[in-house]
Amino acid sequence: MSTDKWNLSFKVQRKSGMAAAEWNGDNRTIEQLIEDYQPGYSMEQQFYRDPEIYQREIENIFLKHWILAGHVSQIPNAGDFFLFEMDRESVIVIRTRDGEVRAHLNVCRHRGSHICLEKQGNAKLLTCPYHAWSFDLDGNLVSARLMAEDFDKSQNGLHAAKVELVGGLIFISLSDNPPSLATMRKDLGDVFDTFGFDHMKLAASKTFPIAANWKLAVENYQECYHCTPSHQEYAKIHALALAPEKFAELKEDYLAASDGSVRQEESSCYFDRAKPGDEGYQYGRNPLLKGMKSGALGGEAVAPLLGKLKRHDGAASEFMVGPLSFFLIYNDHMVGYRFVPNSHETCSCDVFWFVRDDAVEGRDYDLEKLTWLWDITTQSDEEIIVNNQKGVDSHFYRPGRLSKMEYFEQSFLNWYLAALKG
Amino acid sequence: MSTDKWNLSFKVQRKSGMAAAEWNGDNRTIEQLIEDYQPGYSMEQQFYRDPEIYQREIENIFLKHWILAGHVSQIPNAGDFFLFEMDRESVIVIRTRDGEVRAHLNVCRHRGSHICLEKQGNAKLLTCPYHAWSFDLDGNLVSARLMAEDFDKSQNGLHAAKVELVGGLIFISLSDNPPSLATMRKDLGDVFDTFGFDHMKLAASKTFPIAANWKLAVENYQECYHCTPSHQEYAKIHALALAPEKFAELKEDYLAASDGSVRQEESSCYFDRAKPGDEGYQYGRNPLLKGMKSGALGGEAVAPLLGKLKRHDGAASEFMVGPLSFFLIYNDHMVGYRFVPNSHETCSCDVFWFVRDDAVEGRDYDLEKLTWLWDITTQSDEEIIVNNQKGVDSHFYRPGRLSKMEYFEQSFLNWYLAALKG
Amino acid sequence: MSTDKWNLSFKVQRKSGMAAAEWNGDNRTIEQLIEDYQPGYSMEQQFYRDPEIYQREIENIFLKHWILAGHVSQIPNAGDFFLFEMDRESVIVIRTRDGEVRAHLNVCRHRGSHICLEKQGNAKLLTCPYHAWSFDLDGNLVSARLMAEDFDKSQNGLHAAKVELVGGLIFISLSDNPPSLATMRKDLGDVFDTFGFDHMKLAASKTFPIAANWKLAVENYQECYHCTPSHQEYAKIHALALAPEKFAELKEDYLAASDGSVRQEESSCYFDRAKPGDEGYQYGRNPLLKGMKSGALGGEAVAPLLGKLKRHDGAASEFMVGPLSFFLIYNDHMVGYRFVPNSHETCSCDVFWFVRDDAVEGRDYDLEKLTWLWDITTQSDEEIIVNNQKGVDSHFYRPGRLSKMEYFEQSFLNWYLAALKG
Repeated sequence: MSTDKWNLSFKVQRKSGMAAAEWNGDNRTIEQLIEDYQPGYSMEQQFYRDPEIYQREIENIFLKHWILAGHVSQIPNAGDFFLFEMDRESVIVIRTRDGEVRAHLNVCRHRGSHICLEKQGNAKLLTCPYHAWSFDLDGNLVSARLMAEDFDKSQNGLHAAKVELVGGLIFISLSDNPPSLATMRKDLGDVFDTFGFDHMKLAASKTFPIAANWKLAVENYQECYHCTPSHQEYAKIHALALAPEKFAELKEDYLAASDGSVRQEESSCYFDRAKPGDEGYQYGRNPLLKGMKSGALGGEAVAPLLGKLKRHDGAASEFMVGPLSFFLIYNDHMVGYRFVPNSHETCSCDVFWFVRDDAVEGRDYDLEKLTWLWDITTQSDEEIIVNNQKGVDSHFYRPGRLSKMEYFEQSFLNWYLAALKG
Repeated sequence: MSTDKWNLSFKVQRKSGMAAAEWNGDNRTIEQLIEDYQPGYSMEQQFYRDPEIYQREIENIFLKHWILAGHVSQIPNAGDFFLFEMDRESVIVIRTRDGEVRAHLNVCRHRGSHICLEKQGNAKLLTCPYHAWSFDLDGNLVSARLMAEDFDKSQNGLHAAKVELVGGLIFISLSDNPPSLATMRKDLGDVFDTFGFDHMKLAASKTFPIAANWKLAVENYQECYHCTPSHQEYAKIHALALAPEKFAELKEDYLAASDGSVRQEESSCYFDRAKPGDEGYQYGRNPLLKGMKSGALGGEAVAPLLGKLKRHDGAASEFMVGPLSFFLIYNDHMVGYRFVPNSHETCSCDVFWFVRDDAVEGRDYDLEKLTWLWDITTQSDEEIIVNNQKGVDSHFYRPGRLSKMEYFEQSFLNWYLAALKG
Repeated sequence: MSTDKWNLSFKVQRKSGMAAAEWNGDNRTIEQLIEDYQPGYSMEQQFYRDPEIYQREIENIFLKHWILAGHVSQIPNAGDFFLFEMDRESVIVIRTRDGEVRAHLNVCRHRGSHICLEKQGNAKLLTCPYHAWSFDLDGNLVSARLMAEDFDKSQNGLHAAKVELVGGLIFISLSDNPPSLATMRKDLGDVFDTFGFDHMKLAASKTFPIAANWKLAVENYQECYHCTPSHQEYAKIHALALAPEKFAELKEDYLAASDGSVRQEESSCYFDRAKPGDEGYQYGRNPLLKGMKSGALGGEAVAPLLGKLKRHDGAASEFMVGPLSFFLIYNDHMVGYRFVPNSHETCSCDVFWFVRDDAVEGRDYDLEKLTWLWDITTQSDEEIIVNNQKGVDSHFYRPGRLSKMEYFEQSFLNWYLAALKG
């Protein structure tokens, strides 16, 4: 959209009584706010409150990029499906008869009703409960009663979302022309192989609703400056909670002791470092504290080693794809975090726990022990983020200086402002 | 209002971050959206989401037309009243000392307080609980303490709503110049006489809140394309659930067998077929399935025959007045449906069951049996309508093709768009 | 802000589908609405519904004037604090090491998190739970880990709110340049002395949430025209519930009998009568009904006499400061009322009960008896105010004529409209 149009729209918004700027006596347009952003600082209040900015995020971010929808182990058989829901969208992620994973908008082409009402299930046909229009598992309209002779079924299939599998991880994009995942695939093939991305299953998942703007949730996940004050359990296991100097020492020790069986080389193509046309991604490996094996109570191992791993080497890898999906890969399990915007003032953090696909619950792993660390940690993050929003809502909030441990958040902010500009 | 003004307002609305168009990259004004409507299709998303369009509906539809407020049997004695509530309005429908039915806005002329706080009751005077200004049952201000000498009580009566009785049915309009009901009265006098509209009583009523735009609820009631998939109980009794050809056969058989004791002739002056200045209305009679007598389990009769009817003839009549009030007249009871808008995203469906006024509950009819069919049917309609709204809210919803069984909905859409244009 | 700008903004608002004017076919700007106000009448609907007007109230009223935050007896020791919350603001009111009362915005200067999460408590340091930035009790930033070398702690203290003590009453203002309390202090020194404002304690407090615009709550408190119809308990004790003539007689009798031990002379510098630059205030003393001693069941005394008072003289004093804080001073206790806006359609009334600081609960006063009158009275006021909002929301509400007993409300309306104009 043209800057002029947005200037207009933003000035209008400024007058609508809903946004922060007017109440702060601030008449800047979105473009001005973006230009005025001062690196090294948090962003202005408007970015966390303004419904107009949220609308622009939908168009420029949520409907363009890739997001984790779920895992193939949720839909092993033809007709198995689950719903992925974000903002006002509902997407049917389904296994077709030929074994492929497809995603269809859960919107009937007749008068728009949701077709699948259950969050998951198995269907032979996708039949709308309203007027019984029926679509096959590939989304083609196969029956619609009493339509005019000139009605063309072939033009009335379900709207398709793009799907890409990364191992068993199902990513979708609602864009017709999403950024490419090819660079990431080529770069991280060895990582997926080492950790057995093709041989995992979803062991558990949990949704944490958050009464705050989605960016405060994502920012929270981009920095470990808060880990020591807020996450003592995490801080007893992960070296990332340490100050940069101490962390560097531990990392050197770890690299010296490493047998090279796991990739150490970083790939920092995330956020503002992504190549044009590519989806942002990142891979890195960081030491745990001495003696820690995994992200569990006491740093104990909680499941069989993933993929080709032969031992616990006292480290964990990080992996991210796109702006909303993040993974922490321990040697014996992987945790996924997905941040889902629901409105300009609410979002959710969905946490997924993955183990190797031949592991048997009760025998090879205990769900309580597996999920403990990131359940309590995400609970406290939810509190932190909500309290952050409350203060950001204040007339007296002003952007504050970032610390040396918030460099990754800075990357997110740089990327976000450019993406919002569109 | 002038198109220019509305163009302006709508462009502004488009920028307010609340409407669908912006998020669909759609900048059309209301006028453009109305002009662009394609007959044979459902309407654009904006009509079901946009608060600006809802404001216009209030002015051009809700405050102009007639709506069922209730029934005289609810207020047999002088001073008996009940409240009719719609959107932000509360109306006192009351029996005056001279036995007339009047409707007053429930808004004190002093500082605006609601006067009647109970949903129904009996009052000798309408005394505001705030400062004790008192109004007689006709709405005249009769006492107000300590007012200046120049204060004129006669200028401070309650604002009156228009009232018309159709048999015992109480219709009200909030317009000073509502469309005329005279044509309908003249046309349908024989119908009211046959079914004994003057000799009914309200046996039961139930409100179904619906988390959807009011039009999705009204549209749902305009077509029986969904009856077979959604309402098996209804479909086992009513021929209207059949495909047009099969329905036509049954209707021919019925007409051949009819003894003419009930009017068969249709009056299709509803929605876009109403004469200028007249309120839209419709009368029609449709067969039930073979052997069915009434809208109850197994098609059994559930109450004494209405009015002058001598037998069950295997049919039911439909009657509507205005855009929000609909009636289904079985030979032994009448069901009324009223769709009440409460906001741009919520409404309610209020269902009323009427029987002849000398019928005695327990002896002549059983409430459970009387209300069974349209209780479960309206419950499932509520689910259908809410699921419809969820899909219409999607960025990917587009107007879809209507079927041959949605001709009556087409009439509603044509009328609605013209009414909205004003 | 310039009128032009507001004209623009208001026209926009008028189109946003949220405000009352459009729906009333009313296109007036805020300035026009203010100019068109007719003295002797209540205000137009827009003032009670329009989010744009509420935004303007935040800037021109809530963030400028003084409001009761609480009482020193709530924070006797260094580090004791409580939170005062209004609209989107949270303020930490705290006792410093040198015994002073300070108020800090509860907004961390790093990324804006709320710092104090409990409504009250004791703190040695104000440490943000998010990243552990720590502020001393005076609001100075004393530690922030891992910041760049050029980071200046001295520039990152908590934002301070203005604080003034009136006896033990803590008033705060969020303005850098609030109206002066000096005139009030000089004028009412004898009153504070007589009633022992320096020697009270908070005995109880209660919050009443009100689903109505804050002005309807303040207006309700400005007039006793509603006392007889709505507050029979109050009306059995207070002469103010009487008609003006009867009240005047009682007041004469009271003044004749008075021994002058309590100031009788009125100070009417409230609302539109305040001197430029001064905060509005008012003092007055009014008789109780014959034989009544205090605001309690049967007019009985419920606590030890306040300050220098030697007897019950059958009267009570009124005291107000600023637009939102009001006090009723009986000879044996003081009741405070604070009206707190939370949004354009919700507010709360917080009631405080004060007794002399050496009174012992159980021995010298009973909480039930002390709080009875203004608990039930405020409960019924809450109902009244909500019913008033419901009627004001109607399309058919129009400003109504005020009575002879609403002169003080008239002062409020005059002041409000001037303050809104800014």
